[in-house]
Amino acid sequence: MISPFNPDLDLEINRLLKAPVARIWRCWTEPELLKQWWTPKPVITSQAELDLRPGGSFRTVMRMEDGSEHPFETCILDLERERRLVWTDTLIAGFRPSPAPMFGFTGYVTMHPEDGGTRYIARAIHGKRDVAKRHEEMGFHDGWGAVTSQLEAIAGGLA
Amino acid sequence: MISPFNPDLDLEINRLLKAPVARIWRCWTEPELLKQWWTPKPVITSQAELDLRPGGSFRTVMRMEDGSEHPFETCILDLERERRLVWTDTLIAGFRPSPAPMFGFTGYVTMHPEDGGTRYIARAIHGKRDVAKRHEEMGFHDGWGAVTSQLEAIAGGLA
Repeated sequence: MISPFNPDLDLEINRLLKAPVARIWRCWTEPELLKQWWTPKPVITSQAELDLRPGGSFRTVMRMEDGSEHPFETCILDLERERRLVWTDTLIAGFRPSPAPMFGFTGYVTMHPEDGGTRYIARAIHGKRDVAKRHEEMGFHDGWGAVTSQLEAIAGGLA
Repeated sequence: MISPFNPDLDLEINRLLKAPVARIWRCWTEPELLKQWWTPKPVITSQAELDLRPGGSFRTVMRMEDGSEHPFETCILDLERERRLVWTDTLIAGFRPSPAPMFGFTGYVTMHPEDGGTRYIARAIHGKRDVAKRHEEMGFHDGWGAVTSQLEAIAGGLA
């Protein structure tokens, strides 16, 4: 059960992607595919690990152009294969509270077949207006938009 | 999947209760029973609501001796009937980050039949040592200990 969308607290990317749901799901859940689109170029995802179950770790490492690396640890909350993946940076593996959340948000994607492609919705939901605003000002729409295009390109190239 | 116990970050009550697992579970999950033991007397639980599914709301209101009321909103993360219930105050209903967590902890109970009663373990797990220490200093062992005795008494009196 995911909280209803609240425009004051939540941010969204909503696109029709030209790739079938099964390939979008693979790009989200296979680490070697995830690494190819998860961060906006020229930033690189140097590591990716997912333990696909509630309480499982979902961990990536971002490598910046200067070579510095920034881990991002989150916890998977809920999933339905080829439909939904929910995680949060307020927790880490095993539902333990995060010692240092990046923003304090829950992220989720939903995907459904539409017109031969995929209706793809990615949202970041927050507990406070100022956190949502900061996330938006740090470039949510550009960043998540760019990686969604990268995701579509990688998914489109899969056999 | 719950994080392994970490003595530097986690607090625990571990007791053999003189009541069968089925009654302990009822006391945890039926609001009218939960209200009878959830807060250490003379503090009263004036309201209790549980939506028993991942993402469901778990909300109680504490009424102090001076009549003031304090809501406590958490989110259910995981459960197995008569075995395990996991929730966190870092999130509220629908996995939304809490605008004001009480401590920033994940709580869980596990229960198993033992010697005609119930092996009962209740834990609070934290992300940082200082949060765990503050939770302990605010009376975790006395508070959770007292309510565990209240729980045992209420469960023992059930038909």
